[in-house]
Amino acid sequence: MTIVLYDLVGADEARPFSPHCWKVAFALAHKGLEFKSMPVRFTDIGEIEAGSFKTVPVIRDRGRTCADSFQIALYLEETYSDRSSLFEGEGGKALSRFIEKWAQATLIGYIGPSLLLEIHAALDLADQVYFRSSREQRFGRTLEEAARGREDRLEGFRASLLPLRLMLSEQPFIGGQRPLFADYIVAGIFQWARVISPFPLLAVDDPVTTWFERCLDLHDGIARRIPAAS
Amino acid sequence: MTIVLYDLVGADEARPFSPHCWKVAFALAHKGLEFKSMPVRFTDIGEIEAGSFKTVPVIRDRGRTCADSFQIALYLEETYSDRSSLFEGEGGKALSRFIEKWAQATLIGYIGPSLLLEIHAALDLADQVYFRSSREQRFGRTLEEAARGREDRLEGFRASLLPLRLMLSEQPFIGGQRPLFADYIVAGIFQWARVISPFPLLAVDDPVTTWFERCLDLHDGIARRIPAAS
Repeated sequence: MTIVLYDLVGADEARPFSPHCWKVAFALAHKGLEFKSMPVRFTDIGEIEAGSFKTVPVIRDRGRTCADSFQIALYLEETYSDRSSLFEGEGGKALSRFIEKWAQATLIGYIGPSLLLEIHAALDLADQVYFRSSREQRFGRTLEEAARGREDRLEGFRASLLPLRLMLSEQPFIGGQRPLFADYIVAGIFQWARVISPFPLLAVDDPVTTWFERCLDLHDGIARRIPAAS
Repeated sequence: MTIVLYDLVGADEARPFSPHCWKVAFALAHKGLEFKSMPVRFTDIGEIEAGSFKTVPVIRDRGRTCADSFQIALYLEETYSDRSSLFEGEGGKALSRFIEKWAQATLIGYIGPSLLLEIHAALDLADQVYFRSSREQRFGRTLEEAARGREDRLEGFRASLLPLRLMLSEQPFIGGQRPLFADYIVAGIFQWARVISPFPLLAVDDPVTTWFERCLDLHDGIARRIPAAS
């Protein structure tokens, strides 16, 4: 049976944007698994699967549900162990946690606040109310205040990608010669930005750009299929 | 036959300090391999193994030599594949490259300049001349200028360890439940600082401190055996 991915969208159901849902979409495609993306708005999340979840991604597979992008990747690796590996061993699993936390601190730490207004603009009215309220509480200031100054911080953000850039001088993917879930952790975040905003996060001549373009080409261009925000 | 590790020292042969040599010492101990640390000064490196190398670590094993800490770890993994793994699979190898580059950019990027004067002070006279000249060329300023302001940058350095700190809330080692070479990449760098300088890089209550203490206990305390600089 086709796997269901509950996938965060705004007013336009054809443009899923959650970084964590994108990590899972990449992982499902990597495993060659058929899946159906079920569009969910922020304020719908409480209604899926009888109200069992507060966040997406959630997948339903073989009558079971699984939440949290990392847990889903582990589930897929175990359940579909005969298919292309997402981790290539226990070391890959453990070290992917570091990549996840690096991406959280470095990428989401900058991109999250920077895109607040464009995410807000992409939502329908009910979600806008929820989003403004929950994010203003999280950041302790208005969306407008939290998003301010992204241009001034851009140079620092690009500099913070140095580990990725240095690594790309050794190998084409974080996973080595081929992508692993670690690549999808990072690419899912850049895809979030790509779907939401035309803000130029990456310089055109950055090796990170070249790597992300390679990721957009993966799995029949599953991520490139959604046009970039303009 | 016992493996030889050419191991960088200053005036005191009993205090090897190179971060990259420490990575290898940890890796050899992890594999349970007997090894002899051969003290080498900066200006001696050109003389080891008939002048084949410009940097250490270098190991000699079974009549062969191998240089570069990452290459040595790969060599040990392949040659001693029946012993405790340093990578736990191909994914672990690939992702260790990212850890290496993160550590280079984040840790060595701050610690390197910060310890210049204390490294210089630990060297004998011939090495001091070499070190000052080569490092002043590399940094484009005097050692004193390059080292200045480490206190002002300390808070930013500690903040930059957030990925490691977040990861340690999930698992006790970068390698998961047990250390892998990825841990030694980072611990080797903190050991370098520990042997060279009493400067308090880490706050006492930082989870990173607790992790490093765990690393100092590994393999019969191979790293703790060298007293911290005072």
